[in-house]
Amino acid sequence: MAEPLDDATMARAVELAAYGLGTTSPNPVVGCVILDASGAPAGEGFHARRGGPHAEVVALRAAGVRARGGTAYVTLEPCDHTGSTGPCTEALLAAGIARVVYAVADPNPVAAGGADRLRGHGVEVEQGLLAEEAERVNAAWLTSVRLGRTHVTWKFAATLDGRSAAADGTSKWITSPEAREDVHRLRARADAIIAGIGTILADDPLLTARPPETGARREPPLRVVVDTGARTPATARVLDGSAPTLLAIAATTETTLDAGLLRLPYRPDGLDLHALLRELRGRGVVSAILEGGPTLAGAFLREGLIDRVVGYVAPALLGSGRAALGQAGVSTITGIHSLVYEEVSLIGPDLRLIARPAPKEK
Amino acid sequence: MAEPLDDATMARAVELAAYGLGTTSPNPVVGCVILDASGAPAGEGFHARRGGPHAEVVALRAAGVRARGGTAYVTLEPCDHTGSTGPCTEALLAAGIARVVYAVADPNPVAAGGADRLRGHGVEVEQGLLAEEAERVNAAWLTSVRLGRTHVTWKFAATLDGRSAAADGTSKWITSPEAREDVHRLRARADAIIAGIGTILADDPLLTARPPETGARREPPLRVVVDTGARTPATARVLDGSAPTLLAIAATTETTLDAGLLRLPYRPDGLDLHALLRELRGRGVVSAILEGGPTLAGAFLREGLIDRVVGYVAPALLGSGRAALGQAGVSTITGIHSLVYEEVSLIGPDLRLIARPAPKEK
Repeated sequence: MAEPLDDATMARAVELAAYGLGTTSPNPVVGCVILDASGAPAGEGFHARRGGPHAEVVALRAAGVRARGGTAYVTLEPCDHTGSTGPCTEALLAAGIARVVYAVADPNPVAAGGADRLRGHGVEVEQGLLAEEAERVNAAWLTSVRLGRTHVTWKFAATLDGRSAAADGTSKWITSPEAREDVHRLRARADAIIAGIGTILADDPLLTARPPETGARREPPLRVVVDTGARTPATARVLDGSAPTLLAIAATTETTLDAGLLRLPYRPDGLDLHALLRELRGRGVVSAILEGGPTLAGAFLREGLIDRVVGYVAPALLGSGRAALGQAGVSTITGIHSLVYEEVSLIGPDLRLIARPAPKEK
Repeated sequence: MAEPLDDATMARAVELAAYGLGTTSPNPVVGCVILDASGAPAGEGFHARRGGPHAEVVALRAAGVRARGGTAYVTLEPCDHTGSTGPCTEALLAAGIARVVYAVADPNPVAAGGADRLRGHGVEVEQGLLAEEAERVNAAWLTSVRLGRTHVTWKFAATLDGRSAAADGTSKWITSPEAREDVHRLRARADAIIAGIGTILADDPLLTARPPETGARREPPLRVVVDTGARTPATARVLDGSAPTLLAIAATTETTLDAGLLRLPYRPDGLDLHALLRELRGRGVVSAILEGGPTLAGAFLREGLIDRVVGYVAPALLGSGRAALGQAGVSTITGIHSLVYEEVSLIGPDLRLIARPAPKEK
């Protein structure tokens, strides 16, 4: 039965879950809040890193004996299997929790079944509270489980008229220092950063996450270069060793490059990007930021492989120069790639627009 | 001396002024609120149409004898000249107003001097309260007086990647019905709608204001076609007689078109747009919406003739097709046209971004 504090408490659990973004892959982010039998806050926690304790366990530890007869709010169905830690269902039962409210069912067949197990032991179990919010914070992991591939966020920076460089190719400081800082935060919450060889050759970017906050120590995101012909120069900054790098090349390409290589099927229009994202997921990459290159962005979009768009739109106009997005397989207006805005905010003088593919019409 | 109600009362006066947008040209929009001697609201009014009573007169009539000893809040310095109505300074003095607070000084030499005149008669006068807000609501008129030309709002509709049509030229419904309705409201508040001959030939638009609200009767905006070679077909919908139309053609162009013609100097890169806007202002056009045609928009921007940008940005991606903005005289990044965002709102599923040219750096 719904209780007065359910909404606010689950909202806090979702907030807690977000703290794990960037450090839990290939695990989900999860937040948990325990209220004692009288409805007072007793403990909270989140899954902070792969191999570390699950959110429920952290929250139960904080609550101690006050968990007995209380309610646990969890953003994801409690797991029922033993991985690097024991099953959360056991921990909840051992602590004497009387009611469990969770937002999203576990789509992972290995871990699912938690709800049934708890019910079998007389615990009151409810599902679906703030499911949309909890889905959103865990979108990358849920996508990776449901589709069997890495979740992709396409990030671009452009003027109000959609240009990312002037006619002569210059592009310095189209967006503000605040927006560039925000990009580093975005990168830091992802497991990988993907760019095309065109961007490597043109801009020689580092492709590392350098957020202003020092924060929790974490592994740097994997740098992935889509480089069919293995043309990345040995001196490229992306190969500087400051973070791991993977070059995705055609299976038939010969190279002497001393770097991580991922050989992929080549198709007439480029590397098999579906295969790329399956392979990356196999290596624990739940979420990736796609950057750099209108051509590569167009190819991902054409293949239906963009799950989220984050655009930094500067209040400025160019009228010519490189477009933010290249050929994306649209020849006539009915083929347009429809999105829905999810969040709009000012970042310094620039706008940050977050959008997702629109649900397919039936 | 500032009084507690000053801010809120002037904010209401600014709100009132906005009701006049679209019906007062070539006059400014003005709002006025009268508080009685005890500080209670006594009357309010706005300038509703050219030739009609000024805001101060409307508000004083509403206040009646309660105006005596009271304060008048006006968004623009009260006029001191006799036009189609008597000077507002006289009306304020006759009503016994003790204090006048106005936001923006009158830049019009013919009408200015009101503040001094009032002070000379012992009225307490203050200037500058909410000047920024009052400037904004009157931006078109103030620009027209200060620069001696029509104020131009460039309106565009595009995808998130800056495209206004797909590769094959199709462009139906990039933005939503809500956004298209909003465009009609925008048009209805302007004195003219400007489009290029390319748009006339490609889309055969009506270029009329058809807002969903029926509202106050007003003259329809003037339709202006920038048509150097007088190529507008006699059957074009823009010549349907449902609103006045002016074709801006080169001085040397010969034509038998039976329409209002405005002959302008021709320069190597097109018609003299400065001359166009001076001529339009001379015909009472204070504000114009520039629509239709990336080429024409680029020419206006290159000439520094865009005072406001209103962009309807659909949550969608095309990757190819017509760009919203054409060549705007920028060859390298330092020549970028910098703006500042002024307002961001969701209109249905689309974003409406309002921006103005950034102040020039010293």
